[in-house]
Amino acid sequence: MGRSYAIVGTGAIGGFYGAWLQKIGLEVHFLLQRDYEHVRHHGLAISSISGDFTLPHVNAYNDVKNMPRCDVVLVALKTTQNHLLPHLLPPLVKEGGVVLMMQNGLGVEPEVAAIVGEAVEVLGGICFICSNKTSPGQIQHVDYGEVQLAAYGQDRQSVGITATMRQIGADFEQAGVPIQLLEDLWLCRWKKLVWNIPFNGLSVVLDATTDAIINDVYGRTMAEQLMREVVAGAAGYDLKIEESFIQKMLEHTVKMKPYRTSMKIDYDFHRPLEVEAIVGNPMRAAQKVGVPVPQIAMLYQQLKFLDTRYLDS
Amino acid sequence: MGRSYAIVGTGAIGGFYGAWLQKIGLEVHFLLQRDYEHVRHHGLAISSISGDFTLPHVNAYNDVKNMPRCDVVLVALKTTQNHLLPHLLPPLVKEGGVVLMMQNGLGVEPEVAAIVGEAVEVLGGICFICSNKTSPGQIQHVDYGEVQLAAYGQDRQSVGITATMRQIGADFEQAGVPIQLLEDLWLCRWKKLVWNIPFNGLSVVLDATTDAIINDVYGRTMAEQLMREVVAGAAGYDLKIEESFIQKMLEHTVKMKPYRTSMKIDYDFHRPLEVEAIVGNPMRAAQKVGVPVPQIAMLYQQLKFLDTRYLDS
Repeated sequence: MGRSYAIVGTGAIGGFYGAWLQKIGLEVHFLLQRDYEHVRHHGLAISSISGDFTLPHVNAYNDVKNMPRCDVVLVALKTTQNHLLPHLLPPLVKEGGVVLMMQNGLGVEPEVAAIVGEAVEVLGGICFICSNKTSPGQIQHVDYGEVQLAAYGQDRQSVGITATMRQIGADFEQAGVPIQLLEDLWLCRWKKLVWNIPFNGLSVVLDATTDAIINDVYGRTMAEQLMREVVAGAAGYDLKIEESFIQKMLEHTVKMKPYRTSMKIDYDFHRPLEVEAIVGNPMRAAQKVGVPVPQIAMLYQQLKFLDTRYLDS
Repeated sequence: MGRSYAIVGTGAIGGFYGAWLQKIGLEVHFLLQRDYEHVRHHGLAISSISGDFTLPHVNAYNDVKNMPRCDVVLVALKTTQNHLLPHLLPPLVKEGGVVLMMQNGLGVEPEVAAIVGEAVEVLGGICFICSNKTSPGQIQHVDYGEVQLAAYGQDRQSVGITATMRQIGADFEQAGVPIQLLEDLWLCRWKKLVWNIPFNGLSVVLDATTDAIINDVYGRTMAEQLMREVVAGAAGYDLKIEESFIQKMLEHTVKMKPYRTSMKIDYDFHRPLEVEAIVGNPMRAAQKVGVPVPQIAMLYQQLKFLDTRYLDS
């Protein structure tokens, strides 16, 4: 029998990958909040560049207490909801099981490791995907889709490629998801931040899509400078990111379809911003080892200023 | 006979001070653009915390060629129009005369000195005033009003308090304008920037009034950090601004009436921003002497990005 999966956060990421895993015959249990009633009755519908499909019946829950413990707990909540994890994870994880953190930013794995203890393996899943939840239970997959998997080791130690990673990787591959197994979780996370910090942050502060930023001489300069600070922060932990990677990310952004970042979408919908995971944690990590990141710090403060604007009202 | 004044730029600043100078009996000539027809027929109306008055007849012009040369040429254009000065100033200045630059930012005096030559004295007039042009010829003076006068010396040398400064100061004082004569133009300009850079800049980028910035913990932190970079920039030129001055500016902003900065007003009206004079010139001046100002640089780039947003469309 295959592995069972619990999907914590059935949105653009969790709903998408969870649906694919169910489609290949695995047992999947979906935790929902607002969309619970709809998905319980109508299931999930995926509209994807890899093909459309519907799952009329899914195991839907609105309370972890009713869910079975699963081999893999896939967390795809926004990081702004991570204060719920101490309540959500303990009833779901198994001894010898896995928590797979499919979230943005830095620092989510150690947080979770502290909650679930040493008997549970913690993996990071870094998603390169453009997908949106268009209405309850409806997920639209617009572009990309690759997942990078890497294992969390205490004290930031690399634990290499684990057997669990290979098994989960095989499930994803069977489901048609391009997957990479990588040895260094921290390097993966920092490399993702090279793009995420400038473009998520500036898109909110400047009210701009990626193409508007990259095609403006000042926008591109800002992005490049912020990228250099991210690379310097990573170097403070002996994680080497080549200069060519910055140029690759800039050129990649030039070629991308005009894109509204996830943080900008959150901002436009007056939802809390993932500013701590994506910007605050890397900023503090860099400062902790004495790497100055003044422009990331200003971007952080600007986002914090804007983050409370709509929540107050 | 008293000194004659030419007012280049008859708006919230030039119209206000020019009207007071005419009111005490001095000969004043006003250069206008869009408001020329209105002011020629109806004059100027001042609504001020120091008392309201109207000047039904003023000497109004829409072309410098029709204006007489004056003892004092008071420039109160927005700095975004300074490309016009090589055309506007030569027909107006006198040998032995004065150009008084009542503009924001850094670097306007050397620009003008290069245009008018050594036979014309160049003064800086730094205005601490809240005033607005509410409609053609109508100026509302809301708060403050003090002017600091200081003389420009070649190569940034202090030339002390000149006879001309005393004479012009006396005219302003007679007109009821609080005036300070100061020895060091550069120190005055940098001190003004301590407030102007953070609050003008952030008000545009964050779409915020001064009270929203200063009353937010992140907004206040950003303002304070930017102020420190300005102070460091000044120190690069051996201009000492005390730490207590930063605290004074912050506390002053706490107590100010909620205020929309001049740059924010320009932005809201889709007018060009004074970003080069207020932010770009100080940034480059600091960088030139090796003082890093990364947060001012990012603010500059953000403002340049936003500056072209409406002009393109």
